[in-house]
Formats: sequence, structure tokens, C-alpha cells
Amino acid sequence: MSNFESFFSSNPSFPGFERNQELLNCFCKKNENHKIVLITSGGTTVPLEKNTVRFIDNFSAGTRGSASAEYFLKYGYAVIFLHRNKSLKPFTRHFGDYDFLDMLEEDGSQNGSIKVKSESVKIFHPILVDYIQAKKEDRLLLIPFTSLTEYLWYLREASFCLRTCGKRAQLYLAAAVSDFYIPQDKLPTHKIQSDKGAPSISLHLVPKILEPLVSHWVPQAFVVSFKLETDESILLTKSKAALRKYHHKVVVGNILQTRKTHVVIVTNDNSYDIKLTEWEQKDGLEIEAKIVNDLITRHTEFMQ
Amino acid sequence: MSNFESFFSSNPSFPGFERNQELLNCFCKKNENHKIVLITSGGTTVPLEKNTVRFIDNFSAGTRGSASAEYFLKYGYAVIFLHRNKSLKPFTRHFGDYDFLDMLEEDGSQNGSIKVKSESVKIFHPILVDYIQAKKEDRLLLIPFTSLTEYLWYLREASFCLRTCGKRAQLYLAAAVSDFYIPQDKLPTHKIQSDKGAPSISLHLVPKILEPLVSHWVPQAFVVSFKLETDESILLTKSKAALRKYHHKVVVGNILQTRKTHVVIVTNDNSYDIKLTEWEQKDGLEIEAKIVNDLITRHTEFMQ
Repeated sequence: MSNFESFFSSNPSFPGFERNQELLNCFCKKNENHKIVLITSGGTTVPLEKNTVRFIDNFSAGTRGSASAEYFLKYGYAVIFLHRNKSLKPFTRHFGDYDFLDMLEEDGSQNGSIKVKSESVKIFHPILVDYIQAKKEDRLLLIPFTSLTEYLWYLREASFCLRTCGKRAQLYLAAAVSDFYIPQDKLPTHKIQSDKGAPSISLHLVPKILEPLVSHWVPQAFVVSFKLETDESILLTKSKAALRKYHHKVVVGNILQTRKTHVVIVTNDNSYDIKLTEWEQKDGLEIEAKIVNDLITRHTEFMQ
Repeated sequence: MSNFESFFSSNPSFPGFERNQELLNCFCKKNENHKIVLITSGGTTVPLEKNTVRFIDNFSAGTRGSASAEYFLKYGYAVIFLHRNKSLKPFTRHFGDYDFLDMLEEDGSQNGSIKVKSESVKIFHPILVDYIQAKKEDRLLLIPFTSLTEYLWYLREASFCLRTCGKRAQLYLAAAVSDFYIPQDKLPTHKIQSDKGAPSISLHLVPKILEPLVSHWVPQAFVVSFKLETDESILLTKSKAALRKYHHKVVVGNILQTRKTHVVIVTNDNSYDIKLTEWEQKDGLEIEAKIVNDLITRHTEFMQ
């Protein structure tokens, strides 16, 4: 049995999976003649106990994925947004915790009604319009995950569903997925007790899921993976190695500290930077607008 | 040097601390003749790398802390809400990701304005009114943290500020704080690489901060700690041991699986259950209403 097959058999499906499986199926069937993208976003958790109180997490607010989803929608794609529960989401990402409540007031002119303050309408209106349109056209499907196991089950299922879309499917794998985990049979049942001293945790490698994904699950699709490093000197080498190993189309490489203004697009033929100029940053442009634009051009060429 | 002193000297303060230090100071001065509660809420993170991509986290959505904050406000307390960034917060906790956007529509009767749909006003109105009142009276201060280090620095600072409030201060320590961490000098600088095999992580014990808190930082205050276990057989013993060790007033004990309907209040004299009946659950009553009510009664007795 291969690595990833043994992962799925020893980390079984979970309550709620079948409902989302059905949603994925319907959404892909409905959009099978459409350009469609699966965006993964946010970090996965890896439990340290069966009754999970503690877990290892990967840093990711979901900024890149949620922003990118809006741009794909804008360019007419149907979007499956497979995201970490509570991470940033398209449209709502623009608002902080209390922004919504702070924007509202009782409407003096209409008894018992509440309205958006007139000074906030300008910010609110375009986002609300885009959101309502995406909903009306049923072009956005939101699937939340928390753990690595949930993420991998949904990723495989979404890939199976996308097979019918052939080359029209793009996979934009921006989630920060754990490289390590603790197998079920090695997990303690209860919360680790601190009065027994500080524990050591032995981690195991997560099977490289890009391998079956590219070669078996969605062999026709346009697959884009992301690589985040903190050490610039190894980024390009690791991105190229990933392309050679998994045979997909693009790696978007980025460095933790500069990821909001600079990425490098690595393909089998070449590599080039996408950057935001200072002027663009001041103007509020987001680098995801440029990344998505670039990848849609490449995806369109690939489909022809 | 004691354990906790060496923690603070080897895990120094961070950008943003001074600004919040000032806010805490002002808020406590302004409310020094008032009943005041410090609520801690949500889980702390423990970085596994200096340039943090991975971290260990504690499970906590912030449900207990954010609900409790609303009840303390209702009973006239000033509230410092020291919470994990992005965890649930008072008032906004009632709304899911897209609830706000889904409640809004363009107002046909007033050109270019947006209103809350009439069917949603009923849910929205009482929450908005309470929120606006708490803001107008300046009785709610929100301080966010992410890492264990941030949490401990703010907890100590808030305690120092609360000293002037004497017995009128309650500390309601509901945050899920890590028992383990990796000291700064043992952290790798860069992201742990998976091609070097799966690592083992050696954890160290976090100093027990309740000790200096109760005996030195806020010796006059009414301190309540929380204990979450997954194994019911050890809950009461561990709660009583905590009271004996740290000499504070109350431990609220709870079991992960039943924490929304059952807690046990443990004091130096006795212990008793607080439960939600099935009827109360159906009626939408929250257990935090009962917990806060109970603790306010005890705090009032303590002040006299």
C-alpha cells in the first residue's frame, strides 16, 4: 500500500464529510463547462491528543487564498474555496472584528430599522454587490476544514469531482499544509499532563499528496502549488525540485517576510518575479490581483 | 532568579506592548472606583521556529470568555477582555462568517443606502444597543494576544494596573494557556525542513504564573482560575490541589466534552455543580450567565 493510501485508511473519514462531498459533487457538475478553480487556503492543524486540547498549527491567516478567490470570481471562474475554519474569506476579509457593528446605526427616519452609516456605504457597497452577485450566480462554494485529515479528505474528494472538468479545472493550492503529524495509533487519548514533566513529541512525515493528485486524481488539470520559506537562499532550488518531482505546472514561491509584495513564478521553462511597486502598494493594489491575472493567462494558453 | 522572572527576562517585550500598556493604565485609573474584571480568553500559541511558520496551539474558540464578558458588562462591571487575536469576542460572537453580509440589502426607498433586512432587525437590535452602550460608557477594553509570551506580558501588566482597584478587581482567567514551550535559545531560526526527516520536539514547562499573580501582583483581588480536563476522574483533585497551591478564591472545573452544560465550582470550603437543565438549553440559556451570576455574588460578599 502506498504512503497516502495508508494515510487515508488509518485516518478515516469524519462526521460532516458526506454532506460536503455532496455539495462538491453538485457544484462541479453544475459548472463542468465552466472555468473552475479549487483554492485551498489557511493552515492545517495536527492534533497532539485524541481528545484534542493541543495541536500543532501552521501560520496562515488565509490572506492570499481569500484575496485570490475574489479575483478568480471577478474573471468569471467558479470557485471552490477549501479553507481553514475561521480563516479569512472572500468579501468578509475586508472587515475587522467590530467593523460591521461600528458601521451600523438606528435609522431615525424609519421606525425600528437599522442602516449602514452613510459615511460607510462607500466602502461597503461595492463589496456587497460583488458578494450578492457571486451568490446569485452560485459561483462560490465554501468548504471549511480544521485538521490535516479533514483537509486531505476534502482535497482528494474535490479532485475526484473536478475530473469531469478536464483542462478547465485549475487547482490553486495556497493552504499551509503541515509536513508532520502524529499517527492515530501513537496519539495519547487524554490531555498531556504537565505534572509528569515536559514531554517530547515525535513527529512523522505527512505523505506528499501532490504526487497522487497530479498523476492520478486530476491528471488533466492545471495545478499550481505554493512554497513558503523563511530562508531565501533555498527557495528557487526547492521550487524547481518540486516541479521536477510532481510534474505539475507552476510553483509560486514566497518568503514569509516579503510575501505581500513579492513572489516568484516558477514553471518548467523559466522563472520570473511578480512584485508590487511602492506606488502600487500606496494605491492599495494587492499582489494577488497580479498573481491571479498571470495564472489565468497561463491557464487559458494551457486550455487551447 | 525565580522561574517566572527568568521567563520574562529571556522572552522580552515586543512591538505594540507599550501602546496597550498605556490603554490598560488609563482604563484601570478611570474605573478604579468601579467593579472591574479582567477576563482572559482563547488559546495561546507556542512558536516552534523563530521566524514562525509552525506553532503549538491550545484548543479554544473563546466561547466561554466572550459570553462571560457580556454578562459582566450587563451587571455593571468594567471589562478588560484579554483575548486571543481572532477568537470570539463579546457581541460579534453571535454572528457567523457571512451573517452580516447576508443580513444587508440595498434600501429601495432611500437612494444609495444599505439597511438591515427587516426580518433580521429583531436579532440584531438588542445586541447593537448593548454594544453601543458599552462603548459609550467606555466599559470595555479589548487587548489581543497571540503567543504565550504576549499573553504573559499583558497578564502581568494588567495585574499591576488592577492593583489600585484593590478588592473591587476580579480576575477571570478563562484562557487556555500552554503548559509547555520552547525557550528562545533552543528555537531554530528557520522553518524546519521536511527533507531532513521528521523532527522530535522537546518541550519545557511554562512557569506557573498564578503563583506570583496571587501572592505579589494582585494580592487583594478576587482571582478565579479555570481547569479543563478530558478525564473526569482527575478534575476535582486537580482543582483542589490548585487552590491549595496558589491560594486564590475559586477554580471553575470543566470537562472538554460537557463544558457547555456543566461546570463545577470549587472553593476553599466546598464544591458544587452548575448545570443547564434540558429545558434551559432548549430555551437558549447559556451556562456563562449562571457562572458569572454565581461569581458576582461571591465577589460581592468578598468585597464587604
